[in-house]
Amino acid sequence: MARRSDARERMMGSAVELFRERGVAATSLSDVVERGDAPRGSVYHYFPGGKAQLAEEATARAGRDMAASLTALTAEHGPVGAFQAIVDDFRRQMLDSGFDAGCPVAAGALAGGEAPAAREVAGEAFRTWEAALSAALWQYGLPLRRAEGLATLSISAVEGALVLARAQRSTGPLDRVREEMSALLGDLVARRGDG
Amino acid sequence: MARRSDARERMMGSAVELFRERGVAATSLSDVVERGDAPRGSVYHYFPGGKAQLAEEATARAGRDMAASLTALTAEHGPVGAFQAIVDDFRRQMLDSGFDAGCPVAAGALAGGEAPAAREVAGEAFRTWEAALSAALWQYGLPLRRAEGLATLSISAVEGALVLARAQRSTGPLDRVREEMSALLGDLVARRGDG
Repeated sequence: MARRSDARERMMGSAVELFRERGVAATSLSDVVERGDAPRGSVYHYFPGGKAQLAEEATARAGRDMAASLTALTAEHGPVGAFQAIVDDFRRQMLDSGFDAGCPVAAGALAGGEAPAAREVAGEAFRTWEAALSAALWQYGLPLRRAEGLATLSISAVEGALVLARAQRSTGPLDRVREEMSALLGDLVARRGDG
Repeated sequence: MARRSDARERMMGSAVELFRERGVAATSLSDVVERGDAPRGSVYHYFPGGKAQLAEEATARAGRDMAASLTALTAEHGPVGAFQAIVDDFRRQMLDSGFDAGCPVAAGALAGGEAPAAREVAGEAFRTWEAALSAALWQYGLPLRRAEGLATLSISAVEGALVLARAQRSTGPLDRVREEMSALLGDLVARRGDG
């Protein structure tokens, strides 16, 4: 029983990795089985919906993991520290992967017609990240509308910087976005908030 | 002679459209021929390198078109007006395509192993956009380092907002990024600049 769910878990983990490196369209089920070191033929046992199901579940998994990180990080470090920690994490993964590891939720967003549910789930994941960050900014004294705008800007900036970083094979875009958003958010939080 | 280069031009135009809607991996050469209403079999005549060449040229074309727009827009409207015009243009294309039309250069950046040159060209295109916008911000009085940081932030924010907008099937992310970046850039330009 444990071994069977291990195989499912390994396939899910390798799917998240492959989707963020290559995108959904360029990833085959046999790539997923191979990288996950799972028994050939087991993929349809665990994922009867095939790649569409795998893409949907991988996007949901990655979205929930990031939402949990964001919630924990904002609680511990406030919105500016949380933003910086998220960028630092993506930056490390970019370097570790030789500039191949993008955002797994963005991969779901761009999955296209062969995995339409992945796109929907990606939209929901982005909304929860925006909500977590805007709640933290509001808590630190920003008016709600401003907090929502800055949360969307922060998440969009990170997502875009990942695309630029990948194309340029450089952490420069992530570094510059980190610095500018830290200055902007830090300034507003200090001006408005008490914490 | 005119008709032959017309066919090449139509294939290029349809390649740019398809890559931004579906990504490079999910686009087949026959899709390009079909949407471009080009003679079947002509694609290898005009693009002997196949999809890799088509992806590289489409990314370069889209990158140059945007660089030309940015240069013209910053000259006429300054950096804030140029930024707003770029967002408005992407917003209109998102709506016109039913939230399918992302950035064609981002498609090149994410093309992956089957079109490595498209990724390189995308990196160059992003650099020229950053350079055009940072030059305009510097001209309006910002120190160069700040201008470079804000240019990267602006371009990253638009690229990311396109991913969010696509996933959420909403212009909300583009609208919020437009508002926040306009406030930020407008404030800095007014504080520092004379124009």
